Amino acid sequence: MRAYLYRILEDGHEPTPAMRATEILLITLISLNVIAAIVETIAPVHARLATFFAWFEAGSIAIFSIEYLARVWACVEDPDLKGRRPARARLRYMASPLALIDLIAIAPAFLSLFIAVDLRWLRLFRLLRLFKLTRYWSALNLLYRVVRSEAEIIGAAVFLLCLVLVLASGGMYVVEHHAQPEAFGSIPAAMWWTVATLTTVGYGDVVPITVWGKMLGAFISLVGIGIAAFPAGILAAGFIEEIRRGREDRNETRADHATANGTGTPNRTDDGQNPAIPRCPHCGSLLREQ
Amino acid sequence: MRAYLYRILEDGHEPTPAMRATEILLITLISLNVIAAIVETIAPVHARLATFFAWFEAGSIAIFSIEYLARVWACVEDPDLKGRRPARARLRYMASPLALIDLIAIAPAFLSLFIAVDLRWLRLFRLLRLFKLTRYWSALNLLYRVVRSEAEIIGAAVFLLCLVLVLASGGMYVVEHHAQPEAFGSIPAAMWWTVATLTTVGYGDVVPITVWGKMLGAFISLVGIGIAAFPAGILAAGFIEEIRRGREDRNETRADHATANGTGTPNRTDDGQNPAIPRCPHCGSLLREQ
Amino acid sequence: MRAYLYRILEDGHEPTPAMRATEILLITLISLNVIAAIVETIAPVHARLATFFAWFEAGSIAIFSIEYLARVWACVEDPDLKGRRPARARLRYMASPLALIDLIAIAPAFLSLFIAVDLRWLRLFRLLRLFKLTRYWSALNLLYRVVRSEAEIIGAAVFLLCLVLVLASGGMYVVEHHAQPEAFGSIPAAMWWTVATLTTVGYGDVVPITVWGKMLGAFISLVGIGIAAFPAGILAAGFIEEIRRGREDRNETRADHATANGTGTPNRTDDGQNPAIPRCPHCGSLLREQ
Amino acid sequence: MRAYLYRILEDGHEPTPAMRATEILLITLISLNVIAAIVETIAPVHARLATFFAWFEAGSIAIFSIEYLARVWACVEDPDLKGRRPARARLRYMASPLALIDLIAIAPAFLSLFIAVDLRWLRLFRLLRLFKLTRYWSALNLLYRVVRSEAEIIGAAVFLLCLVLVLASGGMYVVEHHAQPEAFGSIPAAMWWTVATLTTVGYGDVVPITVWGKMLGAFISLVGIGIAAFPAGILAAGFIEEIRRGREDRNETRADHATANGTGTPNRTDDGQNPAIPRCPHCGSLLREQ
Repeated sequence: MRAYLYRILEDGHEPTPAMRATEILLITLISLNVIAAIVETIAPVHARLATFFAWFEAGSIAIFSIEYLARVWACVEDPDLKGRRPARARLRYMASPLALIDLIAIAPAFLSLFIAVDLRWLRLFRLLRLFKLTRYWSALNLLYRVVRSEAEIIGAAVFLLCLVLVLASGGMYVVEHHAQPEAFGSIPAAMWWTVATLTTVGYGDVVPITVWGKMLGAFISLVGIGIAAFPAGILAAGFIEEIRRGREDRNETRADHATANGTGTPNRTDDGQNPAIPRCPHCGSLLREQ
Repeated sequence: MRAYLYRILEDGHEPTPAMRATEILLITLISLNVIAAIVETIAPVHARLATFFAWFEAGSIAIFSIEYLARVWACVEDPDLKGRRPARARLRYMASPLALIDLIAIAPAFLSLFIAVDLRWLRLFRLLRLFKLTRYWSALNLLYRVVRSEAEIIGAAVFLLCLVLVLASGGMYVVEHHAQPEAFGSIPAAMWWTVATLTTVGYGDVVPITVWGKMLGAFISLVGIGIAAFPAGILAAGFIEEIRRGREDRNETRADHATANGTGTPNRTDDGQNPAIPRCPHCGSLLREQ
Repeated sequence: MRAYLYRILEDGHEPTPAMRATEILLITLISLNVIAAIVETIAPVHARLATFFAWFEAGSIAIFSIEYLARVWACVEDPDLKGRRPARARLRYMASPLALIDLIAIAPAFLSLFIAVDLRWLRLFRLLRLFKLTRYWSALNLLYRVVRSEAEIIGAAVFLLCLVLVLASGGMYVVEHHAQPEAFGSIPAAMWWTVATLTTVGYGDVVPITVWGKMLGAFISLVGIGIAAFPAGILAAGFIEEIRRGREDRNETRADHATANGTGTPNRTDDGQNPAIPRCPHCGSLLREQ
Repeated sequence: MRAYLYRILEDGHEPTPAMRATEILLITLISLNVIAAIVETIAPVHARLATFFAWFEAGSIAIFSIEYLARVWACVEDPDLKGRRPARARLRYMASPLALIDLIAIAPAFLSLFIAVDLRWLRLFRLLRLFKLTRYWSALNLLYRVVRSEAEIIGAAVFLLCLVLVLASGGMYVVEHHAQPEAFGSIPAAMWWTVATLTTVGYGDVVPITVWGKMLGAFISLVGIGIAAFPAGILAAGFIEEIRRGREDRNETRADHATANGTGTPNRTDDGQNPAIPRCPHCGSLLREQ
C-alpha cells in the first residue's frame, strides 16, 4: 500500500487515472487557496464570507497535512533513498526543497495554536502555498538552473547595474538636492528616481526640475538603460536556451534510439566518444549527425 | 460557375486579375468598416454623418452577406472537402475558424432585427471585422502556431510571472496598506501598482510613499522586471523564428529542386534519410548540404 | 580637374589628405548647422545671437550650394554614369536619394527669395540637413535594407499591433467612457492611453479609474505588451544581423583570398559551387570551410 | 619579500589563503566605503555619526594609501615589466588604468590638505572608489571590449537615435509650442519629453495636450521606440556574446588539451591550420571537431 501511495503522489513516469485525479485535485486546491488569500484582503469580501474562508482554510490545512504526512511516509519507496534506514530516508526527504515548501504551507497554521500570531500575517503566509505548484511546473527549478549556469554573466551585469545606479544617484543628488531637498535630499532618496528611470518604469512622482538635472537625467536615461537592461536580457535568453536544451535532449535521446535501432549507423553520438562531430560553440551542444 | 467562384474567392495559387480585384475590394471594405466603427464613436462626427454611416453599414452588411453565402456555396469545390456530400461539406466549412469570423462580422446586424440590442454595442462588434483580414494576412495564424509550439516555455514564464505578481502585490499590501488604504487597501488593489511596475508602464497614479514601500518597490522593479519580460521575449523570439522557418522552407524547397535537377548530387536532403547531414541543435533544422 | 573634384567628393576607396579634410569639414559644418537650428529655438539665445546665426546660415548655404553644384558637375566621372551624355548623367544623379537630400538642405533658403515663407518654418527645415550625414554614415541605408528584407515579418507584426491597438482601445472605450468622458470619450481618444500603455511609456495623464477599467487595463498591459514589442524586436534583430552579415562578407572575402593564395585548398567557397558545404538554415550563410 | 607582496596583491593564478584574505578584506573595505559615502548624505545619519564616519574615512585612506604604495613598490615583479629599470617600470605601472583608479580613490583626501575643497564634494568623490572593484570583477573591462568590438554597429545605432531624437523634438516643438510654451517652448526643452518617450520612461510631467500633438506623439512612440531600442539591444547582445566567447575559449583550451593527449586525433584545431573545419558565420568561432 505504501508503494501504491508513492506511485500516486510522486512517480510521474506512467500516470494512471488515480494519479491524474490526485494531481488535478491538489493543483486546484492550491490555486483556490492562493485566490482565497488574495480575495480575503478585500475588506467587504472578508466581512461577508469570514466563516466560509475559515472553514475552507481548516479543510485545506487538513488536506495539505495529510498530503505531507503521506509523502513523508511513502518517501522511503524512492529508489534514491531505498538503501537507507526508513528514519534517515524520511529525515533526508524532509530536508529537500519540495518537502520544505510543503511544510511552510502548513506550519504557520499549527504554530498559531501554540504562539499568539497576528492573524493578518498568518493569512499572508498562505500566498507561499503558490510555491507548492513548483512540483507540477518546473519553472522555478528552471530559473534556478539558469541563474546558476549564467551566474558569472549575471554577476557582471549586476555589478554594472550597481555602478550605474550609484553614480547616477550621486550625480542627481549633486545637481538637484538644492532645488528639491525632499526628493533628492540624499543619495538613497535619489535612488528612488534612479531605479524608476533605469528600469524605464518612470512613475513621474519625482522628476528633475533644474536645467542641469534634466540634462543629466536625459543622459542617464539614454546611456543607463542600455546597461540596466543587461540582467533582464541575460535571464530571458538563458531561460529560453535552457528550455530549448531540455527539449532537444529529449529529442536527441529519441533520435539516438531511432538511429541505434533503425539505420545502424556506426557514428556514436555520446559526448566525447566520436571526435568527428562538430560542436556548436554558440550553444555548446553537438551539431550531431543523424 | 461554382468552380469559378471558388477560384476567385479561395484559391490563392494562380491569381487572375478578377481574383486580385475581389481581394483588394474586400480588404478595402473591411478596413473602411473598422475605420468607420472607430470614427463613429466621436460624438460630433457621429451627429453629422449618422445617415452616411447607416447607409455605409447597410451596404457593407449586404456585401459581406453575399460574400459569406458565396463562400459557403462554393466551398464544396475545395479539394479537401470534395469527396463528401455537399450539405456535410458546407457544415464542416461553416465550422472552420475563418468561416466563423465571417459569420461574426454579419450576425449581430441580423440578430438586431429579432432582438432589441443596444445600438452602441452593435457598432463596436464591427471592430471584430478586423479579424476578417486574417484570411489575407497570416499573422494571427502565425501567432497561434508560435503560442502552440512554445506552449511549454510560455506556460513556465507565465507561472513565474504570476508568482512574482502575487508575491510582490502581497508584499506591497503589507508594507503600504496603512499609509495608503485607498491604493494598497487589498492585494487585488495592490496588483494595479504591481502590473504597472512589472510591465514598466509606470503610470504614477499609485506610488509607494513609505520608506519601506519605496525600498520594496525598488527591489521589485529591479528583480521582477527581469522575470516579467520572459513571456514577451519568448513570444517575440518564437514569432521571428517561425517566420524565418517558413521563409527557409520555401527557399529549401526551391534549392532541393535545383539540386535534384542541376548538380545531380547523390546526397538526399529528406529528413532522416541521410545520416551524414549535421542538424543544428539550436533551431532544429538540418545544416543541409547544397 | 573634374576628375580630381570627383575623387575628393565621392570616391571613398583610397582616401587622400585632401579628401579627409573635405569630409571632416563638411561633417563639422552639417553638425554645427543642426545644432544652430536647435539652439536658435531658445528665445533668449535667438534674441542675443540673431545676427551671428543669420551670417552663419548665409555662409552655410553658400558652402552647401557650392558643394551641391560641384557634385552635380563632377558626377559624370562616376563609372556607373560614364557611358551616358553629361546632361542625362547629371539629371540621373540629381534624382538619386543622396542628391535630393543635398537639394532639400539648400532649396528652402532659395525658395524664400521668391515666395514669402514663414521664417520659423524655414529654420526648422534646417534640421533635415542631418540627413546629409547619411553619406558618411550608412546607418539609414542599413535600416532601409533591414526594413525591406524583413518586410514580411514587420508587416505581420504591425498588423498584430494594429489589431491589439484597435481591440484594446475599443474595450477601454466601452468600460471607461461613462466614468471619464474626457479621456475615453471616443475610440480615437482611448487610443492615446492604449499607445502609451502598449509602448510601456505610461505617462499617467490618462489612467482607468473604474474597477473594470483597471482589470481590463492590467490584462491589456500583460498580454498586449508582448505583441506590441514585436516590431521593435524584429527591427533590432534585423539591424544587428545585417551589420554582422556585412562584416562577415568582408571577412570572408579576405579569407577567400587567403585560402586561394595560401593553402591551395581545392574547396571552392563560392555560393552554389561546392555542394559539400553545409549551410546554416538559421542565418542563411554558409558554414564554410577554411 | 617584495616578490611575496606582489604575489599576494596581484598574482591571481595560484591563490593562497593570505591572498584570499587580502582580497576579501579589500573588497569589504571598498564596499563599506561606498556604502558610507551613500549613507552619509542622509542628514540625520550624518549628524549623529559624523565622528565615526570621519575616523572610518581616515582609516580607509590609510589602508588604501598603504595598498597603493605596496602595489607601486611591488609592481617591478610583474613579468611584463621585469626587464625595465625599477623607476621606469613603476611610472609605467602608475599610468595604467587600474593604478589610476587607485590613485583617484585617495588623491582627493590628500589634496584637501593643501587646497580648501568643499567637504561635500570630497565625500562624493568616494563613490568613485566603486571602480576599485573592477580589479576583482572584470565587468567594466568586458563592457569596454564590447563597446570597442561593436563600435561600428553602436555608432550606426546612436546616429539613428540622434536622428529620431532631433526630428521628433523638432516636430513636437512645431506642434505644441503654442499650446505649452513652458514645456515645448524650444527644441532643447522638447527633447526632455522626447527622451522620456523614446526610452519608454514616460514620467508624465510633460505630455502633449493638442490633438495634433497627441497624434504625432503616438506616432513617435510607436515608430521611434523601435529605433531607440537599438543601442541597448546591441550592447546587451554583445555583452552576452563576449562572456560566452570567453567561457568557450577556456573550455576549448581544456578540450584541446584533452584531445591532444587523449584520442590522438590528427585534426588540429588551431585557427587557419585545418581547412576542413567549418566556421560558424553567426558567431565567428570554429565549429570545431573534438
